[in-house]
Amino acid sequence: MARLVMKFGGTSVADIDRIRNVALHVAREVNAGHEIAVVVSAMSGTTNQLVQWTRDAANVHDAREYDVVVSSGEQVTAGLLAITLQGMGISARSWLGWQIPIKTNEVHGAARILSIEAEALSERWAKGEVAVVAGFQGVAEDNRITTLGRGGSDTSAVALAAALGARCDIYTDVDGVYTTDPRIVPKAQKLDRISYEEMLEMASLGAKVLQTRSVEMAMTNQVALQVRSSFDPPEGPFGDSVHGYGPGTLVCGEEDIVEKQIVSGIAYSKNEAKVTLVRVQDKPGVAARIFGPLSDTNINVDMIVQNVSEDGETTDLTFTVGEDDLPRAMDVIESAHDDIGYQHLVGSTDVVKISVIGVGMRSHAGVASRMFQVLADKGINIQAITTSEIKISILIDSAYTELAVRSLHTAYELDAD
Amino acid sequence: MARLVMKFGGTSVADIDRIRNVALHVAREVNAGHEIAVVVSAMSGTTNQLVQWTRDAANVHDAREYDVVVSSGEQVTAGLLAITLQGMGISARSWLGWQIPIKTNEVHGAARILSIEAEALSERWAKGEVAVVAGFQGVAEDNRITTLGRGGSDTSAVALAAALGARCDIYTDVDGVYTTDPRIVPKAQKLDRISYEEMLEMASLGAKVLQTRSVEMAMTNQVALQVRSSFDPPEGPFGDSVHGYGPGTLVCGEEDIVEKQIVSGIAYSKNEAKVTLVRVQDKPGVAARIFGPLSDTNINVDMIVQNVSEDGETTDLTFTVGEDDLPRAMDVIESAHDDIGYQHLVGSTDVVKISVIGVGMRSHAGVASRMFQVLADKGINIQAITTSEIKISILIDSAYTELAVRSLHTAYELDAD
Repeated sequence: MARLVMKFGGTSVADIDRIRNVALHVAREVNAGHEIAVVVSAMSGTTNQLVQWTRDAANVHDAREYDVVVSSGEQVTAGLLAITLQGMGISARSWLGWQIPIKTNEVHGAARILSIEAEALSERWAKGEVAVVAGFQGVAEDNRITTLGRGGSDTSAVALAAALGARCDIYTDVDGVYTTDPRIVPKAQKLDRISYEEMLEMASLGAKVLQTRSVEMAMTNQVALQVRSSFDPPEGPFGDSVHGYGPGTLVCGEEDIVEKQIVSGIAYSKNEAKVTLVRVQDKPGVAARIFGPLSDTNINVDMIVQNVSEDGETTDLTFTVGEDDLPRAMDVIESAHDDIGYQHLVGSTDVVKISVIGVGMRSHAGVASRMFQVLADKGINIQAITTSEIKISILIDSAYTELAVRSLHTAYELDAD
Repeated sequence: MARLVMKFGGTSVADIDRIRNVALHVAREVNAGHEIAVVVSAMSGTTNQLVQWTRDAANVHDAREYDVVVSSGEQVTAGLLAITLQGMGISARSWLGWQIPIKTNEVHGAARILSIEAEALSERWAKGEVAVVAGFQGVAEDNRITTLGRGGSDTSAVALAAALGARCDIYTDVDGVYTTDPRIVPKAQKLDRISYEEMLEMASLGAKVLQTRSVEMAMTNQVALQVRSSFDPPEGPFGDSVHGYGPGTLVCGEEDIVEKQIVSGIAYSKNEAKVTLVRVQDKPGVAARIFGPLSDTNINVDMIVQNVSEDGETTDLTFTVGEDDLPRAMDVIESAHDDIGYQHLVGSTDVVKISVIGVGMRSHAGVASRMFQVLADKGINIQAITTSEIKISILIDSAYTELAVRSLHTAYELDAD
C-alpha cells in the first residue's frame, strides 16, 4: 500500500465521458490498495471563459474577485469526479482549497502555498475514502479564495504529495517527457527518467509538460513525480502500477538515474525578444544604467552580449527579454537614452533560444564545442550564448529553429532507432 | 439612510450586459445613501447545466457533492458583479455562504438556514462597501457547502434582510404580483400591496413570483418585501427609491394595507392529480387505513371528498396529491388494497385547482357562494372544495381552467378598466 496523489489536467476532465475515464484510472489504483488523493483542473475551456468574463466585467479587475470567479471551475470538476467515483461504488469526497485547508499568501491570481494541513485527509484515508481535491486554489489568511496562477494544479498536486508523504502522478495529454518536441523531430524519444534539474530547464525553456514551480517544489521536497498519459487505457497492460511506475517519465533525483546521458534533451523557446543598443558608450557604469531601470520595472533579462569595442569609445550591446516584455523594455531604454548614451535602439522578436540540457555535462567536456560545430556546419549564426552547469543555451534567428533542433538531436545521439 | 437587501434572479444576471444593468440598479441605491447587500442567483441556464452534469456523472448522486457543483454558479455571479461594481467606482466585495457564514442544517440540496452571522457584513457597511452575496447557498456544521433548493436565492435574501434589519427588494423578470396570470387574463392588474398570508397562498398555488419559504420567512421576521422588475430602467422615473417604494408590489403585514380588497387574486395550479377509490367500505377507521400509509410515504394529501353512502355499506372517496406524487400514491393504495377494501382505483391528472384569495374574506360572507354561482352559470362541475380563512379552492376539469379564471376575475371586480 502506498500513498498516491494523481493529478488530471483540463483536457483529461473535458466532459463527463473523460471524467469517467479518470475515475477508471483512480479505480485501478484503489484496487491496488493505495491511499489516494486526486487533484483536478477545470474542464478545458472553462477557465478561459471565466477569465474572459472577468475582463468583460471591468477593464481593471480586483484579483480577489477574479479568484472567486476563476476558482469555481475546479470546484465543479471536483464535485463531478466525486459523484462519478461514488457511482462506481468507490467512497469519495471532494475538498476545496479552504476546506482542507491549503493556506497561501495573499498574492491573488498567483498565490504561493504556505502550508497544507492534511490531517483531515489522512483521517478520511483511514476510512478508505478517496479525496478529490480542487486544484489551482487555496485560501488566504483573511479567509478569501486564492488561485495559484496558470498551471497551478500541478503545484497543488506536488504540494499535497509533499504534505502527505505521497508519490505524485501527473496525468496529461502526452505520455511523458521527450528528448525534444516530437512535432519537430519525429525521432524524439520518450525519457524513462529525468532529473529534477533537467526537468526544470526543460519546463522553463518551453517544454510545456509541467509547470516550473511544481518541479521546484518536487525537487525541494524530494517528491517522486511521474508524467503519464490519461489517454492510456485505464485498465490496459501499462495500468498495473502495483509493479512499479507506469510507462510515463519519472522525474526524480539525479541519484536515482543509473544510466546518465550526457545530454538528455533539446529544448527551444520562441517567446524571446532581442534588444540591441547600437553604439552605446563603452564606459564603466553603463551596464548599471541599462539594467538598473529594467530590473526596477520587473523585467527579467536573460542573455547579455557586449561586443568588443572597435573604436575604444563605443560598442554594441544586446540583451534578451521575454517576448511579452519587449514593448516595456524598449520604453524603459528609450526613457533612459540621455543617461545611457547610445546611437539607436533595435528590437526584434525573430529569435529563438535553443538549449542543450543534461546533468552529464557536469562531468563531460566538449558538449558546448560540439554544439557550436554542428550549428556552424549548418551555417547558423549564434547571436548570444548562456550556460549553466547542466545546460547550454544559444540565441539564433528563429527561421533556423527546426533545422537547429533536428541537427543537435542527431548530433547528441538522441534519435530513436 | 436605510439598510437594503437587493436580490436579482438568473434572468437578471444572464450575461455581462445584464450584470452591468444590475450594477446600475445598485449604484442608484448607493447614491441614495443606503447600506446595501446584493444577493445574486446563477446566470440563467447555468444551474440547469450543472444539475445535468451531476445526473450524467451518476444516476444516484451524493447530495453533498451535488451542492459543491451546483453552488458554483452563484459564486461566479457574485465575483463578476463585485468586479463590475468596482469598475464603476463602487467599493464592493463578494461573500460566499461559508464566508459570511450562512449556517444551515445538513439537508443537502434543500437545506434550511439556521443562522446568519452578519457582523462582518455590518462592519464592511461601516466602511461604505457593498456586500455581494452568493444566493442559494450556505455551509453546514461539518464545513461542507449546502444549497437551499430551487428558488433558494429568495430565501437567502430574506434571511439576510432579517439578520441585518433591512428591507428586501426582489428584482425579477415581472414587475410585480398580479391579480391573476396576465397570460390568461389580459385585464389582470398589478397589486400595489399584498399581505404575506395572501402572497403565501398565491405562491404555493402556482403564482411563481416568489418562493413560498421566502414569504414565510419574511412574514415571521416582518421583513418588508418588494417585488419589482430588473428590466425597469435603473435610472428611470420609478428608480428614485428615496421617495419610497418603487413601482412593484409590496408584500407586507395586513395592518399595512389600508384599502383591503375582499378578493385580492385568483390563482390556479395545474400540478394536481386526483385519486378516486370506487366503492370503498364505509366503516370507521377506513380513512386512517388510506391516509396513514400515504403520510408514512411522505405524500402530501391536499383535498379529500367522501360521497354520501348510497347503500349504507360503500361509498366513493376522492383525494388529491401533487402530480409528481401520483404514481407513488397509486402504488401505496394498491399495496393496501386488502387492508382498505375497495372495488377499484382511478387516477387522473386532468384536473386544476383554482383558488380565490383575499384577507377580506375574514370579514365578508358570500365570497364562496358567489364563486359557486359563477362556475354553475358557466356549466363547470366542482369536484372538490377546500377552504381556509383567506382562500377558497376548488378542483375542476382542467379543460375549464381559462374560462373559470376569467369568469371569477370579472365576478370579483378585479378586471382593469
